[in-house]
Amino acid sequence: MKINRHFLELKDSYLFATVGAKYAAYTKAHPERKVIKLSIGDVTRPLAPVVIEAMHRAVDDLSRVETFRGYGPDQTCYAYDALLDSILGSYARKGVTLEKGELFISDGAKSDLGNLLDIFSTENTVLVPDPVYPVYVDTNIMAGRRILYADANEKNGFLPPPPKEKADLIYICSPNNPTGAAYDRAGLKAWVDYARRENAVILYDAAYEYFIDDKALPRSIYEIEGAKECAIEVCSYSKTAGFTGVRCGYTVVPEALVREGTSLNRLWARRQSTKFNGVSYVSQMGAAAVFSEEGERQIRENLAYYRENALRIAACLDGAGVPYTGGKNSPYLWMKCPGNTDSWTFFDRLLEEANVVGTPGSGFGKNGEGYFRLTAFGTAENTREACDRLAKFFAQYDRK
Amino acid sequence: MKINRHFLELKDSYLFATVGAKYAAYTKAHPERKVIKLSIGDVTRPLAPVVIEAMHRAVDDLSRVETFRGYGPDQTCYAYDALLDSILGSYARKGVTLEKGELFISDGAKSDLGNLLDIFSTENTVLVPDPVYPVYVDTNIMAGRRILYADANEKNGFLPPPPKEKADLIYICSPNNPTGAAYDRAGLKAWVDYARRENAVILYDAAYEYFIDDKALPRSIYEIEGAKECAIEVCSYSKTAGFTGVRCGYTVVPEALVREGTSLNRLWARRQSTKFNGVSYVSQMGAAAVFSEEGERQIRENLAYYRENALRIAACLDGAGVPYTGGKNSPYLWMKCPGNTDSWTFFDRLLEEANVVGTPGSGFGKNGEGYFRLTAFGTAENTREACDRLAKFFAQYDRK
Repeated sequence: MKINRHFLELKDSYLFATVGAKYAAYTKAHPERKVIKLSIGDVTRPLAPVVIEAMHRAVDDLSRVETFRGYGPDQTCYAYDALLDSILGSYARKGVTLEKGELFISDGAKSDLGNLLDIFSTENTVLVPDPVYPVYVDTNIMAGRRILYADANEKNGFLPPPPKEKADLIYICSPNNPTGAAYDRAGLKAWVDYARRENAVILYDAAYEYFIDDKALPRSIYEIEGAKECAIEVCSYSKTAGFTGVRCGYTVVPEALVREGTSLNRLWARRQSTKFNGVSYVSQMGAAAVFSEEGERQIRENLAYYRENALRIAACLDGAGVPYTGGKNSPYLWMKCPGNTDSWTFFDRLLEEANVVGTPGSGFGKNGEGYFRLTAFGTAENTREACDRLAKFFAQYDRK
Repeated sequence: MKINRHFLELKDSYLFATVGAKYAAYTKAHPERKVIKLSIGDVTRPLAPVVIEAMHRAVDDLSRVETFRGYGPDQTCYAYDALLDSILGSYARKGVTLEKGELFISDGAKSDLGNLLDIFSTENTVLVPDPVYPVYVDTNIMAGRRILYADANEKNGFLPPPPKEKADLIYICSPNNPTGAAYDRAGLKAWVDYARRENAVILYDAAYEYFIDDKALPRSIYEIEGAKECAIEVCSYSKTAGFTGVRCGYTVVPEALVREGTSLNRLWARRQSTKFNGVSYVSQMGAAAVFSEEGERQIRENLAYYRENALRIAACLDGAGVPYTGGKNSPYLWMKCPGNTDSWTFFDRLLEEANVVGTPGSGFGKNGEGYFRLTAFGTAENTREACDRLAKFFAQYDRK
């Protein structure tokens, strides 16, 4: 009996635990001070009314013999047509035509980003941007794959171009977590061209695409010609519609995506029909309401709320002359710590002097050192107050 | 770029597709005949009222800022305390004491049975009973593991004892799908002793444990001394409470389960926190109502309904002198095809002569040839009518 010893190579991630511990210690020592969290990575707005209604109806369906639903339909990996059709409609509005068989419903982007690795050889070399969402790295360490890093830094606007080296599997997250930077068409086309040339496959994490309001930026990698032959796109209702607790997402594996003479769509369907039993009927019916006309209108209200927070923080950083990426087409702002302060020192000063909590950039990779992540998921009231404090904090930063 | 070529070694499973196609062809050719399905592997009774109420309340929670829930709690792999506590209570009533940290909430037994393999080396040898639920075999073929089979047959009552050979990972499903056979304490103790001697780990699939009403039979492998040092137990609300469409289950990885000096509980927690984001809040709240006092009372009504169907089919087989296993502590009946008929020939005759559909045993493994699976998940009315037809069919079986 042997365990998978690759697990022992994983580093324990203390980032959010340490942030939490420092916050707890500070508030305990200073119970009279109101500490504001600009570190929230989870949504806080309630679900849209049409989604709530659809979920109540779905629960009622499960209460009666005549409308009861068990396992979802086999032939679509347990997805209901109403949901699949609504997603095809959302893609069509972005100018992307997909077939129903190219869509897979998941319980979230994180599950699929990890589980998709099952269909690829462990001999493949993986390319991951740095800094990045830690899951890309950890899931590949678990499988024993060789990992290369693409340096994301100030020079390339935290949007690294394709490297000289050959990679087989490429992770792209745009708009990016944690940097908030989003590729434009030319930037994404360079990656599609690279992947096609190298016979690589791009795993495109589009979890934040609904935060894009700049019409010049692509919202799906399939807006780039040739992407269907080299990219899998992983999407989620989590940030789009506040589904972090509801659990529903979708993944596109195009029919045109073939490697070693084998359809990756067929491999993924086989993986999912063997190791997955579909998403809750209630979650699927809620999700199907999101891309209805009324649903899109309602979720845009929540997105506008977060976007306003992001713009407020961006204006504050602009006013203080602090360089940053994101905030415009993303709920994240990735700022440079002033005066070459390292990420954790900045964290401590911000907590103590302004009573504001954020996330040290060094926790997302070596290129994150000296940077700091702020998020737009708090309440408007708290965000406003935090910005007032930030303005004062930056104004006197160098004097200390 | 290489795909995972082990996927190409998988056989396509045509079992249920072929059953469906034959059913469709027959009903098309004979639209006037009422064909009854005793092949249903999915629940058909609606959810218990307390579960429906809990799910409506959970949906309402998501509609308000004050009660909104995003990601579940990190420290419990996204599980809510109310659900964990209710499961600990259910175990306590079976005489099994567990700690909260030993419980993991899943979106169903199938996901966990597959995903658990991530924490074990691909060099391990796997032991799988034959016939069996095809997922155990397929998930290990995907990972390239060596598979041994434990012959389940008439001689051992379809409950194979431990083999002479050494295996590292052992699948046990009791009550079994498809045979309905359930291990008694002595039978299960032999496996626990074997696993401890060989340093193996048992993956114990207890998805059907709520169908056990014989007090002499164990409902959890942890009722056997020493099991916490060698077994992971995978449970589900699917058949227990009709959750096939709601998606919730739970897996126990005991603290005492250590291999190569490493806690398997810690490895699984790391796997789940990296590749999973928890189960829908609505599903968790529904599940938390199942093991309440009123919940247990209500789900037992549905289980009694299915059990009555099973006993009716069993009585019919008894009357016809057809040998079978299951039906008593299981929703499945595994019958021997009369007159040494092979499984598919029996399927065709039963469909044509009695207009009843079942599942050919040969689809579950080589030892299933000559056997046939009937299920108790239909309506009482249809089951009664099917039994009348079966009685006549068997009475004249040899004369054709």
